[in-house]
Amino acid sequence: MKVLVLGGDGFCGWPTALHLSQAGHDITIVDNLSRRFIDVELEVESLTPIQPIHERITVWKEKTGKQIGFVNLDIAKEYTRLVDLFLDVQPDAVVHFAEQRAAPYSMRDSAAKRYTVDNNVSGTHNVLCAIVESGLDIAVVHLGTMGVYGYGWSGTAPIPEGYLTVSVPTPDGDLEREILHPANPGSVYHMTKTLDQLLFAFYAKNDLVRITDLHQGIVWGTQTPETALDDRLINRFDYDGDYGTVLNRFIMQAAIGHPLTVHGTGGQTRAFIHIRDTVRCIQIALENPPAKGDQVSVFNQVTETHRLKDLAEMVSKLTGAEIAYLPNPRKEAAENDLNVTRERFLALGLNPTTLSEGLVEETRDIGAKYADRVDLSKIIAKTVWNAGMETSPDLMS
Amino acid sequence: MKVLVLGGDGFCGWPTALHLSQAGHDITIVDNLSRRFIDVELEVESLTPIQPIHERITVWKEKTGKQIGFVNLDIAKEYTRLVDLFLDVQPDAVVHFAEQRAAPYSMRDSAAKRYTVDNNVSGTHNVLCAIVESGLDIAVVHLGTMGVYGYGWSGTAPIPEGYLTVSVPTPDGDLEREILHPANPGSVYHMTKTLDQLLFAFYAKNDLVRITDLHQGIVWGTQTPETALDDRLINRFDYDGDYGTVLNRFIMQAAIGHPLTVHGTGGQTRAFIHIRDTVRCIQIALENPPAKGDQVSVFNQVTETHRLKDLAEMVSKLTGAEIAYLPNPRKEAAENDLNVTRERFLALGLNPTTLSEGLVEETRDIGAKYADRVDLSKIIAKTVWNAGMETSPDLMS
Repeated sequence: MKVLVLGGDGFCGWPTALHLSQAGHDITIVDNLSRRFIDVELEVESLTPIQPIHERITVWKEKTGKQIGFVNLDIAKEYTRLVDLFLDVQPDAVVHFAEQRAAPYSMRDSAAKRYTVDNNVSGTHNVLCAIVESGLDIAVVHLGTMGVYGYGWSGTAPIPEGYLTVSVPTPDGDLEREILHPANPGSVYHMTKTLDQLLFAFYAKNDLVRITDLHQGIVWGTQTPETALDDRLINRFDYDGDYGTVLNRFIMQAAIGHPLTVHGTGGQTRAFIHIRDTVRCIQIALENPPAKGDQVSVFNQVTETHRLKDLAEMVSKLTGAEIAYLPNPRKEAAENDLNVTRERFLALGLNPTTLSEGLVEETRDIGAKYADRVDLSKIIAKTVWNAGMETSPDLMS
Repeated sequence: MKVLVLGGDGFCGWPTALHLSQAGHDITIVDNLSRRFIDVELEVESLTPIQPIHERITVWKEKTGKQIGFVNLDIAKEYTRLVDLFLDVQPDAVVHFAEQRAAPYSMRDSAAKRYTVDNNVSGTHNVLCAIVESGLDIAVVHLGTMGVYGYGWSGTAPIPEGYLTVSVPTPDGDLEREILHPANPGSVYHMTKTLDQLLFAFYAKNDLVRITDLHQGIVWGTQTPETALDDRLINRFDYDGDYGTVLNRFIMQAAIGHPLTVHGTGGQTRAFIHIRDTVRCIQIALENPPAKGDQVSVFNQVTETHRLKDLAEMVSKLTGAEIAYLPNPRKEAAENDLNVTRERFLALGLNPTTLSEGLVEETRDIGAKYADRVDLSKIIAKTVWNAGMETSPDLMS
């Protein structure tokens, strides 16, 4: 298939582009390098030394003989160029990662809140609008988030894959209806993914655009078989308070002897997936699109669920690291159950990487290897959900 | 109360600003005059000869002694000025009409779709973000639409005021949950109001912003007691295929001897409200805000429901006009039931204007009086929901 990977220079986008290229798809990356600009803004760098996009693509060609295209384009701001690109490339599908993806960053200040909403909503809407304008039948695979469902709303009810069957009372008796699972986002970032869902539902209904929305858990790990082919293909690894995902932060903290930073009680239960499985899921979704006229196809892209406290204890046991319970800068339930339905990917052949296999390797190959690149002043999460909420001082600087 | 009326130069905004000023509130209109620019773009004018905003405000002062302020500001694009305005005026509330409000215009082409999404979402989000940044406790009253619920989804179930109680199956038995009514918008415009709902829910939850969302039916009529005080205060009346609302279009068509244009079978049932009741509802909502920490307060702002065919027949019987059944340029159910709950405004004292009282007066005082201002080439709706859908040729030009 001819595939555009929007946001193909990012943490999920880059390994996905390589994985799809390796699988024989014809890939063009579309990215405005915004994630690298945010590194500059936040004065922090990936723990792993990532290479510039043209170097990455050149090395990939050198190692595999496969060509990946690159277009520097802002999908939220350069609509006409986006339409022209669709008409020029005539892709079978776009994989859409091109959104600001960090919850803490999205709560940082008004500028970051506004950037997250304007960038994510305009970007997604432009993609849909450009597909309709192009007249082409381009399928969309979009990275959503488990955070659209929220945590703890439905008690012990398993979170379904997108759609919930409910019973509505009417004068003629109860009516069964399948509805999009009610949205309960916990940050401005998560909120934008709930807005995306409504954009998708409308364009699937009105214009019969074929759309898959993947509600992903928290990603951990760094490398895939493709990014591991050469040091210069290495994937990004964020460890800072805004962009670092919880388990990767624990791994880095353990590697440098920093206490594992648990926010609040650690009773928050979240869903996880290894980056290796992310790229496999994207491939499966891409190769199994919905038909024209179908409702949006939703998958829960998660392989395990854990309480954050249990994760910290697991890493502590493996590495000897201490655990520090810090004030929670987020506004969220102190504890929650989480029971996620995830039949669809398993039925299509996904064979998940478990935490128990991957953790040791990750701590050794990434955390320890690049420990000297850590800026100690970037570890503690400082972004708060409401003005005046308490944060921890730095523990090691 | 000190109140900013965002979009206070528009069809609902102008009479609301006057009504609130008359009721003793201290009003400042904030508007970028975008609706007048769209008149220029569409090469059409209000049937009624509306005056420039400064003339309107000067006449109001002359007639009533009451001062209304005016700030020319684009809430979607001038965020810093918006924050400064909040800090400067320190309003108790903002009434937010400042969105692109026509469904057909929002489906016109990619530019109009994108403008509608970008303008409406950024505008609403900027208001919320600026309230949080200001640190002020500013209540929001927003004009939503009945179209967020969609038509026909729930069979004979009455459409509740915002929230639906459903039963969710869990391993521990059924769970009762109150959810935001599922969204089923019929156009890009209606879709933006479903996005607004999620913005409101998040900012009410995370930042305790006090928000009222008014899901209004289709407005008809032109004048309120305040706009009728002087010819130069007259309200706008849109009759064209993009901006004209159905009943006002029938009134204008009857006045000039044009057949009443019914799209499709006319079996579509919709909710209606007279502009006189709109302004009363806004006042009631403004004076009865939710408390800090409450969920978004939702009212259904409608007074009657009718099948479009029945409306056409009512106008035909009153005026002798013929009815023309034309191809439907919209993608919507040919027929639907509509049963709308509207207890909240009635409980707070609204005494509605009924169609039977207002129709004759409207046809005489507006339709007939300004009949010579009609451009016959603007009457037929030409905007289609999907490329290639059929529209009627002009019937009278």
